[in-house]
Amino acid sequence: MRKTFLTPGPSELYFTVEDHLRTALRDQIPSLSHRSKAFRVISRQATDGIKELLGLSPDWQVFFLTSATEAWERIAQELVIRQSHHYVHGAFGKKFYETAKAWGKEATLAESVQEVIFDAPAPTDADLIGLTYNETSTGFQLNHDILKTVRSAHPDKLIALDVVSAIPGVNVDFSLVDTAYFSVQKGFGLPAGLGVWLVNERCMARAQSNGYHGLKSLQKFAVKNETPETPNVLGIYLLGKVVEDMARRGIRQLQNETVYKSTLLYQVLDNHPLIRPFIINPTFRSKTTITLACGTQTEGLRNHLETHGLLAGEGYGAWGGQHLRIANFPTHSKETFEKLCDVIEKFE
Amino acid sequence: MRKTFLTPGPSELYFTVEDHLRTALRDQIPSLSHRSKAFRVISRQATDGIKELLGLSPDWQVFFLTSATEAWERIAQELVIRQSHHYVHGAFGKKFYETAKAWGKEATLAESVQEVIFDAPAPTDADLIGLTYNETSTGFQLNHDILKTVRSAHPDKLIALDVVSAIPGVNVDFSLVDTAYFSVQKGFGLPAGLGVWLVNERCMARAQSNGYHGLKSLQKFAVKNETPETPNVLGIYLLGKVVEDMARRGIRQLQNETVYKSTLLYQVLDNHPLIRPFIINPTFRSKTTITLACGTQTEGLRNHLETHGLLAGEGYGAWGGQHLRIANFPTHSKETFEKLCDVIEKFE
Repeated sequence: MRKTFLTPGPSELYFTVEDHLRTALRDQIPSLSHRSKAFRVISRQATDGIKELLGLSPDWQVFFLTSATEAWERIAQELVIRQSHHYVHGAFGKKFYETAKAWGKEATLAESVQEVIFDAPAPTDADLIGLTYNETSTGFQLNHDILKTVRSAHPDKLIALDVVSAIPGVNVDFSLVDTAYFSVQKGFGLPAGLGVWLVNERCMARAQSNGYHGLKSLQKFAVKNETPETPNVLGIYLLGKVVEDMARRGIRQLQNETVYKSTLLYQVLDNHPLIRPFIINPTFRSKTTITLACGTQTEGLRNHLETHGLLAGEGYGAWGGQHLRIANFPTHSKETFEKLCDVIEKFE
Repeated sequence: MRKTFLTPGPSELYFTVEDHLRTALRDQIPSLSHRSKAFRVISRQATDGIKELLGLSPDWQVFFLTSATEAWERIAQELVIRQSHHYVHGAFGKKFYETAKAWGKEATLAESVQEVIFDAPAPTDADLIGLTYNETSTGFQLNHDILKTVRSAHPDKLIALDVVSAIPGVNVDFSLVDTAYFSVQKGFGLPAGLGVWLVNERCMARAQSNGYHGLKSLQKFAVKNETPETPNVLGIYLLGKVVEDMARRGIRQLQNETVYKSTLLYQVLDNHPLIRPFIINPTFRSKTTITLACGTQTEGLRNHLETHGLLAGEGYGAWGGQHLRIANFPTHSKETFEKLCDVIEKFE
């Protein structure tokens, strides 16, 4: 029986992906040279589509990487000169901090699972600040006010924003940051194996030019709508198509639906006798990856959901036996969420 | 009209790939978590399958990267201590040399397009030697004797072998080298976006542990049949399936067919009034990517082939207007090559 993947990524494919894959095979997309005009058209559709969908200003550039994990490494190599400071609300924010240290930078961090930590300014010597818009491991989500606070407290530092599992379901004002990155198997509902790195001109001015995926190498090829290496051509094709589909549906529509679906689920959780949202302060509860604190009921609830064809994500790391995580991405329909809420309500 | 891609990669998909893609969608492979048991089974099928198909001894490990371009960078970071030496027969061998320099190593090179250069030993201080089994840019191919010569002249240095566009169509004795790498869109006939890095224990002993795709990080996850990042899950799935298909067909059978098909084509070229093989010495003519020196006939021949549904690859770089390149991969059937030879013979 076909299951509905509510896992926080890889997740359910966006509902148009299978059709696009069939078209791609018919049109022999996987056989195209990455130095051909046909590829350049495909690549441009994806990069232009992303800029348009996310409302990026013209001075931003869109580069293809292979994962958000690679983005941490490239940002550490390219954009952190001496020191980075990381506001950390969970495992993924911390991994960026650890990556910066691994590449010889003096990384510092402010860390909390539940509390707001953005009042404490970054060290003066830090030249880049790392933020995670949606911490997939815990379900802690930032908002526009926090971005504004961090931006105005640090006008001279670069701000790097992890938007993995946040976009396109929530609205992010990219004018408040300098660089952002995501992988496509979360909110965009695509097969894994492609990362996207967004940078503004302040980043380009600081480029260190490390290797084939350094900013200067990426730019050299991107002006031709190409990539330094043979990339995931099929992934780039599918991304361009899905971004087009989402633009047609309307990103505001899609973001309103995200709010509607998350509100439904949080209402059920707030009134449930056995389960509660892991993030205590409603302001910071993620709209796109909802973490359920289930305690001893974890396995019971997971199995209960599975009998209804709904696959929840495991709790992250040490929370494996106590949490479940529910993705609320554009591909997850209102009907799916209404069913999910129904099934959770009946779990006693 | 469906074309036959004879381009040297991306190329024609292996003829079983479309079926496997359909099965993958039916089984919801792209939605699987990369931390799930189901993924570990998929990952193991690919790595075990490669070891078996290529006849790797048990002390070798198979790691997933994203491209052969990444492999150059990782080898430069992980395995070159101070100096690498590169035997270069074209653009791809040279790119590895340039990558080593870009990452601060003292790289040296011996370079020739047509001549054998392996008699000159590497500098004493070099700790790693770079070889390209099949130089895709020119169609210069090494052989078993050359590997033996280089190995016995340099028993203490690591040897890194580029097997992009060589395997599985030609037989490579991996016991004569220490590490090798390839991308899957060439001989394996898969969509681009996945690289494979093979290393023996001597490499692991030298691991520098740079970042998430450093050898120690790769190994830490590979022992669990996982990867540090969310990888190209679909690509790994398809690789495992295609390797299984090739093993069933028999790698010797597939290599004999490669010889048969390349022999057919070289006979036609040797007797052709207008076109000749670019590589002069028959000993070094590639069996897997055949470069045609066409001079002023280049565009004419390309168009002539295209009217018969056959898509040749462009000449590499500066040879763009003078060469055509023909891939001879396992997916290209004997019938396709017989047709190709026929069409070329009729070109006057």
